[in-house]
Amino acid sequence: MATLINKQQRLASRPVAEPSLDNFRLTEVPVPELAAGQVLVRHHFLSLDPYMRGRMNDGKSYAAPQPLDEVMIGGTAGEVVASRSDRFAVGDRVVGMGGWQQYQIVDGGQAGMLRKVDTSRVPLAAYLGAVGMPGVTAWYGLVRIIAPKTGETVVVSAASGAVGTVVGQLARLRGARAVGIAGGPEKCRAVVDDFGFDACVDYRAHPDVRALAGALKTACPDGIDGYFENVGGTILDAVLGRTNAFARVAMCGMIAGYNGSPIPMSAPQLILVNRLKMEGFIVSEHMDVWPEALAELGGLVASGRLKYRESVAQGIESAPEAFLGLLKGRNFGKQLVRLV
Amino acid sequence: MATLINKQQRLASRPVAEPSLDNFRLTEVPVPELAAGQVLVRHHFLSLDPYMRGRMNDGKSYAAPQPLDEVMIGGTAGEVVASRSDRFAVGDRVVGMGGWQQYQIVDGGQAGMLRKVDTSRVPLAAYLGAVGMPGVTAWYGLVRIIAPKTGETVVVSAASGAVGTVVGQLARLRGARAVGIAGGPEKCRAVVDDFGFDACVDYRAHPDVRALAGALKTACPDGIDGYFENVGGTILDAVLGRTNAFARVAMCGMIAGYNGSPIPMSAPQLILVNRLKMEGFIVSEHMDVWPEALAELGGLVASGRLKYRESVAQGIESAPEAFLGLLKGRNFGKQLVRLV
Repeated sequence: MATLINKQQRLASRPVAEPSLDNFRLTEVPVPELAAGQVLVRHHFLSLDPYMRGRMNDGKSYAAPQPLDEVMIGGTAGEVVASRSDRFAVGDRVVGMGGWQQYQIVDGGQAGMLRKVDTSRVPLAAYLGAVGMPGVTAWYGLVRIIAPKTGETVVVSAASGAVGTVVGQLARLRGARAVGIAGGPEKCRAVVDDFGFDACVDYRAHPDVRALAGALKTACPDGIDGYFENVGGTILDAVLGRTNAFARVAMCGMIAGYNGSPIPMSAPQLILVNRLKMEGFIVSEHMDVWPEALAELGGLVASGRLKYRESVAQGIESAPEAFLGLLKGRNFGKQLVRLV
Repeated sequence: MATLINKQQRLASRPVAEPSLDNFRLTEVPVPELAAGQVLVRHHFLSLDPYMRGRMNDGKSYAAPQPLDEVMIGGTAGEVVASRSDRFAVGDRVVGMGGWQQYQIVDGGQAGMLRKVDTSRVPLAAYLGAVGMPGVTAWYGLVRIIAPKTGETVVVSAASGAVGTVVGQLARLRGARAVGIAGGPEKCRAVVDDFGFDACVDYRAHPDVRALAGALKTACPDGIDGYFENVGGTILDAVLGRTNAFARVAMCGMIAGYNGSPIPMSAPQLILVNRLKMEGFIVSEHMDVWPEALAELGGLVASGRLKYRESVAQGIESAPEAFLGLLKGRNFGKQLVRLV
């Protein structure tokens, strides 16, 4: 066949504070011939996620930094378009960590690189969202750390995001009251009307800790028993001030601190006073729960009981701008880039 | 018998910032006749503990404030000197929450008010320390929250105190490396030489977070896997900066914040970056572990494998000053007041 061209986005430089478009560089490389055992995947969707911001830094973190001049890492969903592996056939729908590019060649025999998915009842893109890493992230923090009891109140920040929407819906399915925190009246309305949360607090309308704590008091008249943290900063302070005794806090994201300005927790004594349990986690370190979580999430999506929303940018060229928008909260729900 | 006079220390006023002697008032009341079922206990020892500082405030906390003009609460160990209860006999050694006073009348039938103790192998005063509330506090935080594995490093602040000395020794008995943090070269020397810790950091010699973190790096070359927090403030910041992935932090005391100045945690993102588990606890809410903990602690004290030290003030009149000294770290080991 004619030489295929693979467009890629590479990390050109590390951000000093806020990342910008010139941290990325679009490159084009020819797709090489397949060797024996290899599979060529054409990506239909690229997933954009907040964790990528952390990888752009050089500092110590739980994961190695994204190397400079290499293709940005990222989750992908696509289709096998050529195969010299007996494990994958042309037409197979697969998900993997294919990166910010249109094509990827994978060793079909290497475990864990590609996972075949069934798109008869769950759309392909959902395997990057509610039935993928964000969904399992929501599931782990809610089910394994917060473990809400019937009638308890669970709060989640970035409530309209890919993780937040799942957290609130799973909490309600377990008999808890779900309260979101999101930015702007439009997102808050959708969190309540479209995703069935019991209430949602607009943090933009309550710009300091005291105002936010007051709004949380109204939205959570019985206090807060579980908190799923995606944001950090003043939102964390406000929530901790409204926790009940023995509340559980799942620390999943601290996006407020990604650009280098450290954001202190103003009253850590509340951990003792309210006997809180706070636990940070990275879902990729808990692979043992994925089968159970994906089974529940897939069943709920297939039956229409778990809703999700996607923001879809078009084309690999648009990925950097869509990513910067995600970091500023411009997306609604799962941020994807369609590559076909 | 002649009328007994009971000297008591009452809370005269609440501290505005640091407590002072005039927050307390010495009173004398006659001991009334015993009614049927009652027991008269003469206190030999009063326990002074940091938690009492929190009770002196009026604000929201996990426990009701100490009422003004009433006898200060506190743990006591003593002897039954008169009894109209068939459950207690004159001469019984007992522990209870008798408060800052020389005598207490107790309803012998009320469960949990008085506990008989065996002083044949464990000295009476130890039931207020290593084989009492401080010992069980150490045990719970270490065994149930930190749960150290062989070869891991456990750090404890206020290491020379009644709780800290037990934490380090229990950690070593479980095969972990024990590192203390204490104030001054004398305390640090004793923590290592007398209590067998592997190392001790003098926080007074390292007055800022960076210096303290450097000293911790030297003392904990393999990082920190468990931290037992008795202090808060800059010490907590320095320790968190040296934690390994999946470290556990038992939040037992935040004495640094008791006087009203809030002490922020400067880098809460470490909870996520290092996937920490932090848990606040109050040992009186975990009565289910007391029998197991006391059995281990009593056995270790009786056999000489668990060491402890006491600072003993003489007479109920000296209790306020001894308590203020405790808050400033002037004691070494368990602070007691001898009342006989």
